[in-house]
Amino acid sequence: MPADDGFIMPAEYDRHYGCILIWPHRRDSWQNGAYAARKAFAKLIEAISRSEKVIVCARYEDYDSAREMLPENVRVVEMSSDDSWARDVAPTFVTNGHDIRGIDWGFNAWGGLYDGLYFPWDKDNRMARKLCDLLDKDSYDKRSFILEGGSIHTDGEGTLLTTEECLLGQGRNPSMTKEEIEEMLCSCLGVKKIIWLKRGIYHDETNGHIDNICAFTAPGEVVLAWTDDKSDPQYEISAECLDILEGSPDARGRKLRVHKMYLPEPVCITEEECDGLDNMNGEPTRIPGERLAASYVNFYISNGAVICPQFGDKNDGRAKELLASLFPDRQIIGIPSRDILIGGGNIHCITQQIPFFE
Amino acid sequence: MPADDGFIMPAEYDRHYGCILIWPHRRDSWQNGAYAARKAFAKLIEAISRSEKVIVCARYEDYDSAREMLPENVRVVEMSSDDSWARDVAPTFVTNGHDIRGIDWGFNAWGGLYDGLYFPWDKDNRMARKLCDLLDKDSYDKRSFILEGGSIHTDGEGTLLTTEECLLGQGRNPSMTKEEIEEMLCSCLGVKKIIWLKRGIYHDETNGHIDNICAFTAPGEVVLAWTDDKSDPQYEISAECLDILEGSPDARGRKLRVHKMYLPEPVCITEEECDGLDNMNGEPTRIPGERLAASYVNFYISNGAVICPQFGDKNDGRAKELLASLFPDRQIIGIPSRDILIGGGNIHCITQQIPFFE
Repeated sequence: MPADDGFIMPAEYDRHYGCILIWPHRRDSWQNGAYAARKAFAKLIEAISRSEKVIVCARYEDYDSAREMLPENVRVVEMSSDDSWARDVAPTFVTNGHDIRGIDWGFNAWGGLYDGLYFPWDKDNRMARKLCDLLDKDSYDKRSFILEGGSIHTDGEGTLLTTEECLLGQGRNPSMTKEEIEEMLCSCLGVKKIIWLKRGIYHDETNGHIDNICAFTAPGEVVLAWTDDKSDPQYEISAECLDILEGSPDARGRKLRVHKMYLPEPVCITEEECDGLDNMNGEPTRIPGERLAASYVNFYISNGAVICPQFGDKNDGRAKELLASLFPDRQIIGIPSRDILIGGGNIHCITQQIPFFE
Repeated sequence: MPADDGFIMPAEYDRHYGCILIWPHRRDSWQNGAYAARKAFAKLIEAISRSEKVIVCARYEDYDSAREMLPENVRVVEMSSDDSWARDVAPTFVTNGHDIRGIDWGFNAWGGLYDGLYFPWDKDNRMARKLCDLLDKDSYDKRSFILEGGSIHTDGEGTLLTTEECLLGQGRNPSMTKEEIEEMLCSCLGVKKIIWLKRGIYHDETNGHIDNICAFTAPGEVVLAWTDDKSDPQYEISAECLDILEGSPDARGRKLRVHKMYLPEPVCITEEECDGLDNMNGEPTRIPGERLAASYVNFYISNGAVICPQFGDKNDGRAKELLASLFPDRQIIGIPSRDILIGGGNIHCITQQIPFFE
């Protein structure tokens, strides 16, 4: 197991070698043949590539589009995928301080045959090992355990954040007890303390991934997606998270400082946007007016910047100001991300950092 | 141009970072769905991986087969290809002594619409740039010039060997004069002197690639495929090569030492082997009794070994002994390669070295 070998999962704010993304293509996830999504991805990729290496995986048939639309210093590699969520299908990397290895978790499209979002998912499930080969790094085969990178956050000092809604749900590892899952996470990621929030963002189709509701910004500090509107179903969820966070010391015994990160007004998909999406098995994947899981917490921390979703909402600036106060040494870059959100996630969901190695 | 930038093509016997191969799959090239070829490739790959890194490109649908059949220390990467001739579709790498870059030549399946061996060839033609991205190395876009790696050999000291049959033929760059082609080779590869042999191995469908008939074994020394049988059409071709080689001083003014490398008895494809090959466009790609371009010169020089084709012929041992005398510091490894030869080339044709970089 990685922890036995001296490898642990570092925090996202620790130094990176680079970042992995997947060029979008799925016509039932991304409207108009991923036309708008590709433009948004390209902006994000350019922003990340200013301070770290970027590797973009493209299917054979999308390779020319990616190579054409992306800066020359971005590596475009051919790799088949079912969709474009690097956070959830790329390896989780662990480090011993000098070198890195990848953990190849099982992937079942957020719930498999129970409540997964698409079938089949075999191309996605093969990506983690391929990415380890690509980087010439060893991998741990943990495909018998279903986990997505978006469902875990660490502080790099022994604490892990996750949600019961996702990890204890019927769609992941229903035959394992909570204790067995804790043991797996501890031995794979080198953590000592797991803080379990109950639920994630309202109507988040990942079964409440942690990376959309709460994230470490430093050891002992987190941001929590928040609303003061008690009529919003999100209010009760976030208030419950706040209680748990304030009552859960981290692995080093610190009480967490919780920074409220105000959500945008509910973001709903329009009829025109739905028109641009292909059906899946004869059914629409989204219905006009459907609420999307918009959250500023879904930012990505690169070596030089924090790159944050923007929704054209009055809270856009407030989110950037909070991040600026928490990351004084990094540039804060806002990316209009509605065209990513429509796919079902946001900036953090489509990235996976590769920790620095010597 | 690379030479202006201080980059030159090193010799194959200079130190390598590693080697690229492509997992075979094409059913009209490799008998029985590439079943036998994969076994031969795997033996070769294992032999190369003993002394340098090996990267194997596999199509999505062949990835599991490659990963299963190859040692753990071999990197398997997903990459689409039309066939499996890394020598001809991977980049030609150039070095400045510290770092390397790749040259992305145009590839048209050994003759394009004039006398190429298959159509289309777009997947092959995209591989060189992808391999540069994979290695995170810069590339020169020379796709307007058609060239295969198998049609050139250098001594690393300014001399290049090639054949008129290939480079001046109608299937490559018919609008360019010999002088223009020389200029292109000199400015891309940093060579000063080009030695033009007339023709390659008899019945070689690559239009006489140099790498099947003549190769540098050290500065000032070459091996030349040879037969004493004057009734063999190969005799006249090899004798003509010998005359040219003996009359052509290299870039440093040295007279070349030519070592005769005795060919096996003519190797012809059997009816059973032909039965295992799919047709192409309704026509067989090989006819029973057809002579294959078998030659011991098609060896690969790895960091620790010289890996040489074996045909079950009385000259197998003689070829290995010659190589042992020319490469006293390297192990000589023979690989039974009939199942590679049936595809139309041999060990050198399916490999491409990556020079060492810091």
